[in-house]
Amino acid sequence: MTSNELSNVGNLRVDEDRLWARHMEMARIGAIAGDGSCRLALSPEDAAARSLFASWCKSAGLSVNSDRAGNMFAVRPGQDAKLPAIAAGSHLDTQPHGGRFDGVSGVLAALEVIETLNDAGIDTIAPLAVINWTNEEGVRYAPGLMGSSWYVGQISDATLDATRSADGAIFAEEVRALGWHGDQGQQGFAMGAFFELHIEQGPLLEKLDRQIGIVTSVQGLLWLDVVVVGTDGHAGTTPLEHRKDALLATARMIARLNEVGRSFGPDARVSVGRISTATNGPSTIVGESSFVIDIRHPDVATLARLGENCATTCRDVAAESDCLVTLTERISVAPRMFDDSCITALEGAAEDMGFSNLRMASGALHDASNIASVVPTAMIFVPCRDGISHNVKEYASPNDLAAGATVLLHAMLKKAGLSGG
Amino acid sequence: MTSNELSNVGNLRVDEDRLWARHMEMARIGAIAGDGSCRLALSPEDAAARSLFASWCKSAGLSVNSDRAGNMFAVRPGQDAKLPAIAAGSHLDTQPHGGRFDGVSGVLAALEVIETLNDAGIDTIAPLAVINWTNEEGVRYAPGLMGSSWYVGQISDATLDATRSADGAIFAEEVRALGWHGDQGQQGFAMGAFFELHIEQGPLLEKLDRQIGIVTSVQGLLWLDVVVVGTDGHAGTTPLEHRKDALLATARMIARLNEVGRSFGPDARVSVGRISTATNGPSTIVGESSFVIDIRHPDVATLARLGENCATTCRDVAAESDCLVTLTERISVAPRMFDDSCITALEGAAEDMGFSNLRMASGALHDASNIASVVPTAMIFVPCRDGISHNVKEYASPNDLAAGATVLLHAMLKKAGLSGG
Repeated sequence: MTSNELSNVGNLRVDEDRLWARHMEMARIGAIAGDGSCRLALSPEDAAARSLFASWCKSAGLSVNSDRAGNMFAVRPGQDAKLPAIAAGSHLDTQPHGGRFDGVSGVLAALEVIETLNDAGIDTIAPLAVINWTNEEGVRYAPGLMGSSWYVGQISDATLDATRSADGAIFAEEVRALGWHGDQGQQGFAMGAFFELHIEQGPLLEKLDRQIGIVTSVQGLLWLDVVVVGTDGHAGTTPLEHRKDALLATARMIARLNEVGRSFGPDARVSVGRISTATNGPSTIVGESSFVIDIRHPDVATLARLGENCATTCRDVAAESDCLVTLTERISVAPRMFDDSCITALEGAAEDMGFSNLRMASGALHDASNIASVVPTAMIFVPCRDGISHNVKEYASPNDLAAGATVLLHAMLKKAGLSGG
Repeated sequence: MTSNELSNVGNLRVDEDRLWARHMEMARIGAIAGDGSCRLALSPEDAAARSLFASWCKSAGLSVNSDRAGNMFAVRPGQDAKLPAIAAGSHLDTQPHGGRFDGVSGVLAALEVIETLNDAGIDTIAPLAVINWTNEEGVRYAPGLMGSSWYVGQISDATLDATRSADGAIFAEEVRALGWHGDQGQQGFAMGAFFELHIEQGPLLEKLDRQIGIVTSVQGLLWLDVVVVGTDGHAGTTPLEHRKDALLATARMIARLNEVGRSFGPDARVSVGRISTATNGPSTIVGESSFVIDIRHPDVATLARLGENCATTCRDVAAESDCLVTLTERISVAPRMFDDSCITALEGAAEDMGFSNLRMASGALHDASNIASVVPTAMIFVPCRDGISHNVKEYASPNDLAAGATVLLHAMLKKAGLSGG
């Protein structure tokens, strides 16, 4: 590398057109009506996406390996082969009615970093890697985040291998049949840092007119299953004051839970998205109703307090409404704080390149949430139109994607170190 | 009739054991688990019930005829054959998971009146009649109250004949095949008064410890279809203050609608028993939700005002919740006031016999609501346990059923007039 080349590193930007073209080419695999994609994990469409990705990696001079979970690691050697790789990636599988960006953008941005460095003739001290984590979405095989959960040791080899898909397939057999079953065990692929670029899947960056989200943490999550029991009856004959109306009690709970959430400030999320009633007749007073409260907060103590307040609110409303209530904790995921040096590397890159940016928590779980338990990790968010995701309408602009990939490039360079000169 | 017999008329009571035994015998036709009955209109079970009822009527000396709708009229001649009949009855068809009393009790009580008069050797000036109205429940053939709606002219001959069941049968063909297609046209069977005994299907008589309900009116009914539109989104990523949560708006509406109902006093009914959401994921903010408001009141002007208040409440809450709402009137049935002389006859009979009683409105529609538009009509309610109906657990006690039938007996005698002496 010449000194002239080195002096240009600070201004290096990825190729926006190439990055966008690869999004569009990948989206043709499993394309569905309305600009969407359907590539369920280990399906024929996922297999085709893996092959295309591997072919691009090989064309870029990367060696492509995989592990027991079929996680794919495409490696660009560094000057010091003994150093762990500075890695970036996400996932190529999608929701059944998914978009073209969720997951895909993180894999393609990492590949674009490599291509840009290749084009500029820049080498690093540590190796670089592009990763495709298996089954992030958890649609065919549950739960989601499967490849990264196994990588960090949350899932055993035996459990991973034996996992059955909704359509009856066995995980290990399918990974083998597709040719992505590798010898590497848990954390067999060593990383010095991990970055994940992802669309925000929320409206904040767009609303606040920032191009880059510096993700400092992933919210913790608590799901409470709530069952409200009253007494069913005839809507015409039963006076209002004699009712034990489970749906009315549920409605009061949902309204009050929103107030509880708001009282915990802007980082709190309290949502009810699933509701069902035992009867469903217009003239029948509902005797039993059930719903799920989705509670999130980036701070572990606040999350616990918020969960307790939600439960207390349901019990209070049930008593006021002459109904019974039972609450069961279904899922509890602790908040995850990302690594300070990774956050700083991303934030410094965004500032240096003049991209407007915002520190924020991730409301959704990502593979990076898992990896952060064993490797210094942070995430980049790019805006997505109207905050829409898990939907064929999902859209991120070529310019925002390129800005995110450029931030990723400079953060990876900072972590990997420039070789030669 | 001797003067001794006449002096005993005032104390005459029906035979509680016979009335109960006939309930139990009828309930064996279409019996389902848990003491229930399933006799959908014009089904083989309904046909068997009609045959059993007709055989009892013939044994009691009644002539049994029917009309175009298959409504059955079992007549006991009076002294003056030119007078219209003083009639009572209800329906023998049931809900799919129905009980042993809804409808059945009204038919059997009317038959028990005849048997009691037969046993006592009492004749009347006007003829008496026992009626079984076809398809009150509206399960196989919609809508319900079909036989009585046709009788009063709300449904034309052509519409009646061509009505198709959920299983593809044609009404006129089935009535003919079962042998109950009669020559009589609408109001071909002339009535001077009509009484219907029915279980209350609500909790009031039981709660207030009264044995007889004197039904003075049937509540009017208004169904509003409500569709709330917001924007779906990710429960983790979308801040609470940026949401257009259709389920939250719906919950607020349901809670506020109950307050509106209560503000209209004890006769108002405002209920939401049917709710559905376009998405149903625990972590998805609901973008569209729909529900039905069931609104009832015995006073026509108040019902209209209550309906307007409910609609305004939904619009206000939608605006506060940043959602859109559309309201559509699906069903509107005006309140029906019963006949004063019929009410007085029932009330006088209950008082004379020493039965605790209560004037009340019916919350549910009955065949009597239709008949009241062309014939002086009123209803008797008897208590049902815990207000439960349309359920195999439906229960009315032998003693309460007999008290109701005894009230019916004396009201019919008052209207028909005693013969001879």
